[in-house]
Amino acid sequence: MIVILKENPNEKQLQSLIDWLRDKNITIHESEGTSHRILGLVGDTSALDMDIISALDIVEEVKRVQEPYKDANRKFHPEDTVIPVGNTQIGGGTLTLMAGPCSVETEEQILTVARAVKAAGATMLRGGAFKPRTSPYAFQGLGEEGLRLLSLAKRETGLPIVTELMDLAQLPLFGDVDVIQVGARNMQNFNLLRELGRQEKPVMIKRGMSATYEEWLMSAEYVMSGGNRNVILCERGIRTFETYTRNALDISAIPVLKKLTHLPVIMDPSHAAGKSALVPALAAASVAGGADGLIIEVHNDPAHALCDGSQSLRPEAFAGLAGKLIGLHSFMQSQEG
Amino acid sequence: MIVILKENPNEKQLQSLIDWLRDKNITIHESEGTSHRILGLVGDTSALDMDIISALDIVEEVKRVQEPYKDANRKFHPEDTVIPVGNTQIGGGTLTLMAGPCSVETEEQILTVARAVKAAGATMLRGGAFKPRTSPYAFQGLGEEGLRLLSLAKRETGLPIVTELMDLAQLPLFGDVDVIQVGARNMQNFNLLRELGRQEKPVMIKRGMSATYEEWLMSAEYVMSGGNRNVILCERGIRTFETYTRNALDISAIPVLKKLTHLPVIMDPSHAAGKSALVPALAAASVAGGADGLIIEVHNDPAHALCDGSQSLRPEAFAGLAGKLIGLHSFMQSQEG
Amino acid sequence: MIVILKENPNEKQLQSLIDWLRDKNITIHESEGTSHRILGLVGDTSALDMDIISALDIVEEVKRVQEPYKDANRKFHPEDTVIPVGNTQIGGGTLTLMAGPCSVETEEQILTVARAVKAAGATMLRGGAFKPRTSPYAFQGLGEEGLRLLSLAKRETGLPIVTELMDLAQLPLFGDVDVIQVGARNMQNFNLLRELGRQEKPVMIKRGMSATYEEWLMSAEYVMSGGNRNVILCERGIRTFETYTRNALDISAIPVLKKLTHLPVIMDPSHAAGKSALVPALAAASVAGGADGLIIEVHNDPAHALCDGSQSLRPEAFAGLAGKLIGLHSFMQSQEG
Amino acid sequence: MIVILKENPNEKQLQSLIDWLRDKNITIHESEGTSHRILGLVGDTSALDMDIISALDIVEEVKRVQEPYKDANRKFHPEDTVIPVGNTQIGGGTLTLMAGPCSVETEEQILTVARAVKAAGATMLRGGAFKPRTSPYAFQGLGEEGLRLLSLAKRETGLPIVTELMDLAQLPLFGDVDVIQVGARNMQNFNLLRELGRQEKPVMIKRGMSATYEEWLMSAEYVMSGGNRNVILCERGIRTFETYTRNALDISAIPVLKKLTHLPVIMDPSHAAGKSALVPALAAASVAGGADGLIIEVHNDPAHALCDGSQSLRPEAFAGLAGKLIGLHSFMQSQEG
Repeated sequence: MIVILKENPNEKQLQSLIDWLRDKNITIHESEGTSHRILGLVGDTSALDMDIISALDIVEEVKRVQEPYKDANRKFHPEDTVIPVGNTQIGGGTLTLMAGPCSVETEEQILTVARAVKAAGATMLRGGAFKPRTSPYAFQGLGEEGLRLLSLAKRETGLPIVTELMDLAQLPLFGDVDVIQVGARNMQNFNLLRELGRQEKPVMIKRGMSATYEEWLMSAEYVMSGGNRNVILCERGIRTFETYTRNALDISAIPVLKKLTHLPVIMDPSHAAGKSALVPALAAASVAGGADGLIIEVHNDPAHALCDGSQSLRPEAFAGLAGKLIGLHSFMQSQEG
Repeated sequence: MIVILKENPNEKQLQSLIDWLRDKNITIHESEGTSHRILGLVGDTSALDMDIISALDIVEEVKRVQEPYKDANRKFHPEDTVIPVGNTQIGGGTLTLMAGPCSVETEEQILTVARAVKAAGATMLRGGAFKPRTSPYAFQGLGEEGLRLLSLAKRETGLPIVTELMDLAQLPLFGDVDVIQVGARNMQNFNLLRELGRQEKPVMIKRGMSATYEEWLMSAEYVMSGGNRNVILCERGIRTFETYTRNALDISAIPVLKKLTHLPVIMDPSHAAGKSALVPALAAASVAGGADGLIIEVHNDPAHALCDGSQSLRPEAFAGLAGKLIGLHSFMQSQEG
Repeated sequence: MIVILKENPNEKQLQSLIDWLRDKNITIHESEGTSHRILGLVGDTSALDMDIISALDIVEEVKRVQEPYKDANRKFHPEDTVIPVGNTQIGGGTLTLMAGPCSVETEEQILTVARAVKAAGATMLRGGAFKPRTSPYAFQGLGEEGLRLLSLAKRETGLPIVTELMDLAQLPLFGDVDVIQVGARNMQNFNLLRELGRQEKPVMIKRGMSATYEEWLMSAEYVMSGGNRNVILCERGIRTFETYTRNALDISAIPVLKKLTHLPVIMDPSHAAGKSALVPALAAASVAGGADGLIIEVHNDPAHALCDGSQSLRPEAFAGLAGKLIGLHSFMQSQEG
Repeated sequence: MIVILKENPNEKQLQSLIDWLRDKNITIHESEGTSHRILGLVGDTSALDMDIISALDIVEEVKRVQEPYKDANRKFHPEDTVIPVGNTQIGGGTLTLMAGPCSVETEEQILTVARAVKAAGATMLRGGAFKPRTSPYAFQGLGEEGLRLLSLAKRETGLPIVTELMDLAQLPLFGDVDVIQVGARNMQNFNLLRELGRQEKPVMIKRGMSATYEEWLMSAEYVMSGGNRNVILCERGIRTFETYTRNALDISAIPVLKKLTHLPVIMDPSHAAGKSALVPALAAASVAGGADGLIIEVHNDPAHALCDGSQSLRPEAFAGLAGKLIGLHSFMQSQEG
């Protein structure tokens, strides 16, 4: 961390800052320019609050040199994390295809979709039991019954399950779930993240609608610092000024995260675009851009979906898309050799 | 709600949509343009999911005419909500000044600050006991001990307390708290909101960093639909491309919310700007713009604050500012007569 | 266009609106809901200003049903536009690779780079002669001499040239230029656009940093409505809250524009990311996502580039990347058959 | 400027960087941390391109310590700039009220509005003759005839004129104009800015829709570096994710600019909000927040305005508002004493 001092800083305040930093086992290297003095802080600065230091009257600006995350940092963990899930894995060269409906609605619906996506090449089944809805008056998901139906579909098809947990009180019901999803709106629900770090199931963290890469990685760090290293990052679009799409899928997240972290990166083109017609192009771009997988909404009858229908593909469309994506993934891997 | 159909819609699908809507007690008025047919939906459309309808192949676009919130809607509740808190109130012409440190740190600190802000004209004491921190390694607040110290300061000064609740498990500790704050990062923690609607204390909801007015009002609706009508909205800056300030205080939120809702509006210039030098101008603008009050960080020694120090004023600066704001508020009220 | 009236509109004002619309040859279809009356406007609404109508006290909201652009609209021109440029073309299944330095600096530099990118498979040479720089004190490009050096490189390699025009006064110097680029900061310089519609060279319009798709297409419409149909759209990243990348390459622009317009779409991963390490992944994603081509910065010695060096690849890196992109493009085309 | 080097930088490249900097008369202070070496650059760094230096393989990050603008910088020009305009001035404690229609339409219209706003207390007349319109099919202003009508109104009322110049070719027509406005879409039309620096009339630069404070001040610097010191900054709302308002008026711009620069700051609540109902609150907030003035749209008949009508006040409403703003301004000044 680098602290740029204002011109002619009050020496007493400067000494007080230096003492406070040394108390925290930070070593200080001072250097002198013509107009500005600079303090280079050496040691474990991850617990230092930049805002405290910026607060001082004598400080012009504070600049981090090292990232504030450790367990999620590729610098300290250069090898890609590979997460075993059921009979498949996430990361490590596998193309993960999570597919299924936005909400679990009926036994027939989830079984039909699960069989269809399995046949099409999906490696995991997604489906919402607890649904975060903007309106208190909207359908909030089948809850426990939804989880039961997902288990049924898992037994029938062998596909591992990924589904969203909205509240810690729901955790006991998640015994049969393979990957716990943290929704974008809960990305900075720090109490939730901390507790998920104390259990063993893999956790997939969706990016908050206006979260920076660093904030997102700090949320992963909350889980990892509790001991659970199996974290997956899911980009689902960021909020911008454009209203034609619901959110803007941030394709740069793939190469940026691949540089900053060793965790697998999944892309969600369905939620990002909010329009199923855009999903095939965004999915292909994601695979070619180096994503470890995709999460795609598939519904047997979009006209009657109880939520988010406009971003769902029908099973036939998904089958065509999945085939192309698998082909593209193989092609990309053949080019790397 | 208005549904604009695509040109030459499939009549069978159209009939299926009409049947589905009638099932939900929606009356449909059809009208015919040259290129587009339009359905006007009449009835309680607040539980209808626009996304379901947009999903249909036959639909070009769906447009809400009525707001999806009811309890929070000024159309249905034209009178301003006034919330009694201790010996003061929020709304109804009172200028609420919530002041205090970002985090409660020590008994001496909180008592010193509480006495100072009381003397300066503050009407409520703010202070964080549970702190949402981006980093798992940063100071997370004193927790239960922080609440105890706040109670002490309340007994000593008579100032009602507003403080943040991060998790429902903390609720039993909040007996002495007067207003429960929901932080920006929890604005769409729907389980939390729902439960806060089932208890009686007033709830102040901070706007999420990229939440629209409608999403924010829907979060208020979550609380209100549970029976708790005492909701306060707190604007704390939105995330934009500008990096000089931490967030951009959205001054338009005041007149917009005053039109859309009857709930009181509090402005937080400290968190928004992230720089204490900007607080006086933003606070004066907020009062002149019609806000019901302000929440301002005040610290007895910014250099040693354990968090967010850069946005804190010292008590002397707050005293000067509070005097000016109270004068400005009186002036503005005298002009309205 | 649909006009939603407020409840109980003043009948005199309503009649005045209806008369004004009929003056403009707009036919009006009225329909009555329970709480709202709706006017459907039929005719050429592209010249109607929505803001005028929204202004009226009696109007709740105005909603466009038809896009305000015509010449750029795929609905009216379903066939893809293909633009012949020198011995190549833009659009129509060709993968256009525009490559070259940010700024033309010396004869040796531009010839070296031009030969290298030609050998690597580039189809056009890019290079800045007139440079829009944020600072008046920064290097502003070689100007006329830069254009002369580009011509030299064109004669030597046969590569057509694309370069930016900042001001109409520069147009007479652009005789040897094959595609005129309009920069992001000039995307809404309407006088410039209009004049470029009156000359014959193809025009490539970069998207403004916070321009919506519709605004961007309206800028294309300015050129096209003057008679010049050879317009190319270039996505170069939009401004968001994220600061790790310079801008966020909007990958959704590809499928969205392919639906809304018949014009070719070029992606600029170099300017968007601002970091050359991200270019390969973004370029591959763009090709797989359906872009008609890419514009990529290539420099023979990034350390000495006079501008924007951080986003430049060296020729060797470009050669490797171009080979992969050409292979990927062939693979994608083979999948479509 | 501070250059943070990567760990173990290549010494040859480092020497090449150091030589290049010294060529530019930059002195270099090196300092060594445990993991990172830091170069402090001393001298005139305003012409240095940060991007060039960031480009180097050996550089981790570059950080400016000094602002890149000089003439506009308060550090070097601590006194507020006061700009005489006709019989009034902008800055220096005067409350400037620019008022008038979006577009000049007819002699009767502009005379009626000019007389009304003069009577209400306006100090300048605004009105568009050349209008930047998103659509090539929309009304583009009366042009030269509009300027003639503005002159007429100026002679009749004595109010100085502010109006937009879209292209340098229009400059000869602006003889009677007192303040030349550069629109938000032209904020980075650098050729235009440079030429306006070579003439003598004051220039009011509107902030681009997604321009940072620094970019905006650099645009002022373009004008000032040409010799014209009479520059006014006009905040007109920034583009965000919120769609209820057209743009978000950035109230923080006032205290931020007052700190960074000595130039006067005018606020435009009409364009920002896009809804006339929001103008009074935003205008009052701007005055209390310390703005030097306001530019407000006033129209004698919003229903027939040819553009942007929804943000216009009627003269009666403006008269009431102007009176309140003048009173508020006096009150604020009385508090400062």
